[in-house]
Amino acid sequence: MNDTPPRALSVQECWQALREHEFGRLAYRLLGEVHITPINYAVDGEALLFRTAQGNKLLSVVMHGPVALEIDELGAEEAWSVLARGHARVLEEADAEWTDRLPLRPWVGGEKDVVVRIDPEEVSGRSFRLSKPWEHYIPHE
Amino acid sequence: MNDTPPRALSVQECWQALREHEFGRLAYRLLGEVHITPINYAVDGEALLFRTAQGNKLLSVVMHGPVALEIDELGAEEAWSVLARGHARVLEEADAEWTDRLPLRPWVGGEKDVVVRIDPEEVSGRSFRLSKPWEHYIPHE
Repeated sequence: MNDTPPRALSVQECWQALREHEFGRLAYRLLGEVHITPINYAVDGEALLFRTAQGNKLLSVVMHGPVALEIDELGAEEAWSVLARGHARVLEEADAEWTDRLPLRPWVGGEKDVVVRIDPEEVSGRSFRLSKPWEHYIPHE
Repeated sequence: MNDTPPRALSVQECWQALREHEFGRLAYRLLGEVHITPINYAVDGEALLFRTAQGNKLLSVVMHGPVALEIDELGAEEAWSVLARGHARVLEEADAEWTDRLPLRPWVGGEKDVVVRIDPEEVSGRSFRLSKPWEHYIPHE
């Protein structure tokens, strides 16, 4: 048994990880429930940006409550995760235009003309040494 | 541009994916916010089980509200995600004992003697064809 406790990542390490990735998961509340959906995002300074379609369900719920964006990575001996929590807002068209230079391309087809910006209120992360990772292999029958 | 819309996975496909994985993310509410934390889990029938420590913060918040467990995979040309939503409860000791036969090992060291069970109220999933995935590479400088 590996008794190494999780290590808290510094805020700088969290932003570094956020900048080095573009695929994450957005959690939000909807009718008293919690939901998670995968998104791709980009970092601009200390803001997180993603694209979505005008008038869709995700947009309306994300605009009306707290959200959290998570990224993680599961390695052979170590895992880490970063969580950025805050509120989202839609960028005005003039602000949204310059985001064209960001690596913020929709992965899924269809019109995604709204840019949503999250200015995180809190960014935190942890890394874990995995105990006996070789025991975790589950053969797929 | 790839205009293929996301495909909804059947409930059977969702459970199949849940059974074939053991690393996911748990979303929950805490003081009006939403949080996500990585967990490892096991499937027993149509229940999701995970271990945690008696008296920890995660346990107390998870017991008092809706939760959602998410898994996903990002491939070269396709991505998919599965979400299982419901409420959690702690298994009694007698029920928890037989879970020792499940592949439910804590990945991180320390005592994790409580088994938490989620009977999902809804399981859903989607798969996406990624549009121009080769454009999504971000060089790490």
